[in-house]
Amino acid sequence: MFQNFDAPSRAHPIRDRLVALRAQLARAGLQGFVVPHADEYQGEYIPAASERLAWLTGFTGSAGAAVVLAGEAAVFVDGRYTLQVRDQVDVNDFTPEDLIGHPPHQWLKGKLSQGDRIGYDPRLLTLAEARRFEAVCQGAGATFVALDENPVDAIWADRPLPPLSQVMPQPDELAGETADSKIRRMQEVLADKGVDAAILAQSDSIAWTFNIRGADVPHNPVVLSYALLRRDERPILYVDGRKLSNAVRDQLSERADIKEERAFLTDLAQLGTEGRRVLVDPQSTPALFAKTLTDAKGVLVEGADPVVLPKARKNAVELDGTRRAHRRDGAAMTRFLAWLDQNGANGRETEISVARKLEQFRAEAGAADDMPLLEISFDTISGAGPDGAIVHYRVNESTDRPIESGTLYLVDSGAQYRDGTTDITRTIAIGTPTAEMRDRFTRVLKGHIALATARFPQGTTGAQLDTLARHALWQAGLDYDHGTGHGVGVFLSVHEGPVRISKAGHLPPEPGMILSNEPGYYKTGAYGIRIENLIVVTPPEPIAGGDREMLGFETITLAPIDRNLIEVALLSPAERAWLDAYHARVRETLAPSLEGDDLAFLLASTQPLGA
Amino acid sequence: MFQNFDAPSRAHPIRDRLVALRAQLARAGLQGFVVPHADEYQGEYIPAASERLAWLTGFTGSAGAAVVLAGEAAVFVDGRYTLQVRDQVDVNDFTPEDLIGHPPHQWLKGKLSQGDRIGYDPRLLTLAEARRFEAVCQGAGATFVALDENPVDAIWADRPLPPLSQVMPQPDELAGETADSKIRRMQEVLADKGVDAAILAQSDSIAWTFNIRGADVPHNPVVLSYALLRRDERPILYVDGRKLSNAVRDQLSERADIKEERAFLTDLAQLGTEGRRVLVDPQSTPALFAKTLTDAKGVLVEGADPVVLPKARKNAVELDGTRRAHRRDGAAMTRFLAWLDQNGANGRETEISVARKLEQFRAEAGAADDMPLLEISFDTISGAGPDGAIVHYRVNESTDRPIESGTLYLVDSGAQYRDGTTDITRTIAIGTPTAEMRDRFTRVLKGHIALATARFPQGTTGAQLDTLARHALWQAGLDYDHGTGHGVGVFLSVHEGPVRISKAGHLPPEPGMILSNEPGYYKTGAYGIRIENLIVVTPPEPIAGGDREMLGFETITLAPIDRNLIEVALLSPAERAWLDAYHARVRETLAPSLEGDDLAFLLASTQPLGA
Repeated sequence: MFQNFDAPSRAHPIRDRLVALRAQLARAGLQGFVVPHADEYQGEYIPAASERLAWLTGFTGSAGAAVVLAGEAAVFVDGRYTLQVRDQVDVNDFTPEDLIGHPPHQWLKGKLSQGDRIGYDPRLLTLAEARRFEAVCQGAGATFVALDENPVDAIWADRPLPPLSQVMPQPDELAGETADSKIRRMQEVLADKGVDAAILAQSDSIAWTFNIRGADVPHNPVVLSYALLRRDERPILYVDGRKLSNAVRDQLSERADIKEERAFLTDLAQLGTEGRRVLVDPQSTPALFAKTLTDAKGVLVEGADPVVLPKARKNAVELDGTRRAHRRDGAAMTRFLAWLDQNGANGRETEISVARKLEQFRAEAGAADDMPLLEISFDTISGAGPDGAIVHYRVNESTDRPIESGTLYLVDSGAQYRDGTTDITRTIAIGTPTAEMRDRFTRVLKGHIALATARFPQGTTGAQLDTLARHALWQAGLDYDHGTGHGVGVFLSVHEGPVRISKAGHLPPEPGMILSNEPGYYKTGAYGIRIENLIVVTPPEPIAGGDREMLGFETITLAPIDRNLIEVALLSPAERAWLDAYHARVRETLAPSLEGDDLAFLLASTQPLGA
Repeated sequence: MFQNFDAPSRAHPIRDRLVALRAQLARAGLQGFVVPHADEYQGEYIPAASERLAWLTGFTGSAGAAVVLAGEAAVFVDGRYTLQVRDQVDVNDFTPEDLIGHPPHQWLKGKLSQGDRIGYDPRLLTLAEARRFEAVCQGAGATFVALDENPVDAIWADRPLPPLSQVMPQPDELAGETADSKIRRMQEVLADKGVDAAILAQSDSIAWTFNIRGADVPHNPVVLSYALLRRDERPILYVDGRKLSNAVRDQLSERADIKEERAFLTDLAQLGTEGRRVLVDPQSTPALFAKTLTDAKGVLVEGADPVVLPKARKNAVELDGTRRAHRRDGAAMTRFLAWLDQNGANGRETEISVARKLEQFRAEAGAADDMPLLEISFDTISGAGPDGAIVHYRVNESTDRPIESGTLYLVDSGAQYRDGTTDITRTIAIGTPTAEMRDRFTRVLKGHIALATARFPQGTTGAQLDTLARHALWQAGLDYDHGTGHGVGVFLSVHEGPVRISKAGHLPPEPGMILSNEPGYYKTGAYGIRIENLIVVTPPEPIAGGDREMLGFETITLAPIDRNLIEVALLSPAERAWLDAYHARVRETLAPSLEGDDLAFLLASTQPLGA
């Protein structure tokens, strides 16, 4: 119902598009042009109107870029897409390159000549990205030229219209803090930082600040828009007026000026002319906005988007809503697991059929709870056998694999309800698992438990905590090549900054933050294992007999963890106790929502270990 | 024999010195002057001739600074010295300030007026430090003025002469690599970095590169000197000629030009005039050298001292020597522990008397092994009862505390032998320990074992590993306020960069590095616990049944860990097995070196737990 399982198109794009683009560039006196997979809002998901990379190259992956020069062109993709790109792109037109190991600005370095002019759309590159290209161009005596019009748009005749989803207010009963209060808090931050204004360029920052939601892009319930926070005046929300009903406009107008997006540049130029100091996050702000400000002699104060941290620290109402969402979602997940227990090995099910079944259970749980499933929070990762070992696997009709006995099935999925966002991974033994599978699953579980039960002092970073999730694997010569945890929004992005539990997690988790706890193990060509619950950072609390208050985690995801995959002898008594207590809580919480076979499955699957 | 246990002087310094300095400043048209506790070599220890801070203020601590203005002056000390500074310094002359929380450049910020000229000795501040002051001065419209002559030296009539210890070659049989080979490797690094030369400003970098040692400062067997590495020519060593015997001079001259230190500035200016690119480490290079280069139009290439990483990665010969040093030191330590077991509670011993006893055993072990104890590697931390809770405690005659039954005694000490540097901490129950002491000791031991047994992939940082040492304490609401591990040199500095195991340890341990493993627990006013062994990073190796090669640690410190302080029930079977295996290795390795009561103590104190 929500996910599109179509296979990626295999038709190579019409070469005419590349020819036409090169003609455009020649007319403009440009030797090259950069086409990122990004829109002017820099979010994780982009609307069809912004799929310039796919239109030009044929490549439909969720990340990437292209650089077109007069005589050659390259398309940059990461490890997930090295096969797909060769299926979708004519490599005679675009040479595939490694987005991570040899990113576009580095590739460009070797191609430039003195005096070259390379164009870019300054709405689509962030300030930080544009600077990397500028440095490379400068080093070669070339110029990186911000263009007023995107030359792709000029030749993309049937470009879709931008999305026009209706803005929905997020009620204070779910937001837990009024927009007025949030705006006031942000104005205090601006005063502290000694700036006159701050650009909000990230759609989820705007959604949080104004307590609004939308459906402009898949999975992230945001309104594509911009906002300007002002220290001494009402904020301005720049949004297409057609997205606002009269009622919503009236409500927003009580606390903000509403303008069309095109007024944003004019207003930035005006701020610049007045010599204002404006806070800009170089990692998320289109280069155009910074340029507009500085061209008009405004003062750019670079720093993190001021909304990101307050948004990440959830209030009690947001946490309560999220816990409700997890109870609802856990009931759906348990019904799904019960169904899979009965049907997983029937020989008829495939990755797509079970993913659809899971969506159905989620929709039913939402309906029953009068809190409809509005979206899945990301494309379900439904990986049978060897597909489970592909960390970012997205099934489609061409890869759909049957669920088979003697394999593991990994499903990573989530939901968007008005009261919260969920994200859960379970790995299920279909038939009888091997001893190796049980060993690996149990080591992943040990890491999961070590993080779930961790107590730690304030200031401990995500990188420091990451170790706890990997230690049991490391000791056995095993590891996994992804982070252990990411932030999660409340009816917002399922991947939310700024804190993460990973080797690169230099920030400390703070009370109220919602994070994922998802260690894994992947055996290429054989199976994948991941156990993911969401956790909430608990405030500093004393521990009996101890000297210092410690933070910790509350696990809020509720669904059985497959006991058939646990090698009990590998668990310490404390680890066994944690799992039994977790299962008891799952049972007690979910039992009232389940009946019949589903209830029987819940009771059986949450028995204590060894029972 | 090596340590000075004199109490810090309590006599306030003669106010005339401050008056005289202010007169000097006035004559020079300066409104202020900065006096760091640093010499022009930026090492951890400085010679008497460089104790300008102590001479001016009376404060004799091992870190600090003063800033003198016309109308006021401040002395900056860290938390270790907040009491001592008030004993030693007349606070009417110098206001005590917090060196860490409110460092000199920040303090100065609030004191400056437009047009002020604040002087500094550019030999005594690193480039990075000088820049912090410069930024503050610039912000206030003031100037930070590099002075040719230090105004303290101008009025310090009886200033001691600089040290003139003799340079000792470190033989290739102990260094494991010839100086020629090291120089060649460094020249390759310079070529890789595209620089013509590199300044070596750190004495231990010079000692390693040229395979020389000295005794210019306490505890660190270095030669105060400078060196210039040149990509295409022989390096130049700038050292006072009186430190060189004819034989040593001849040996060094085979691979380096030898010049007096005063020629260094001339040569830097010449490099600058030639437009050379010179690698400078802003964290360790006196500002004067950078200034000399840039004033002469040379190109400053900023980066880490190129010797630091190669020096930290010990070769097999260095590791063998260090293992020998640890066997010798372990035998001395065991004799000390045996003696303490018999005499600790006799009512006559004090922190100083037992520290002297330990030095005696070390000297005897060195003599017996024909590898004399040349130095202790740092001032022994000998902490009885509540003094053990003071992390950086240095006993002196005025604080000397008797060793008493029913307390813990903590001793952190080390030795410098020609073949290696040691650093060990043991905590001993004097009489019967309390249940709380045993609980805390056992949790510290769990952290020590977790780090000692850790396997981890290449690239894991010190911050990530630090967690393992703290986890058992955190879970009980406990922690310690120091890092878990520092690098250790080979007959060089006991505190060696660049890797550390601590919250701030952003670099990964690499094979061959020697680090300390020293978690602790401190109960203010009651007792301190620390268990410290040195560990060597082992190369990536496969683990049976695993997929990936993992690094690990080899523990090289050998001495019994007090079994009376272990609460066996708190240890897992694997932790018990580690301790028993460690003790078996201690027993087997040290037994041949011990006899009589010492041997009996070794055998008894290394029995398996529960035996």
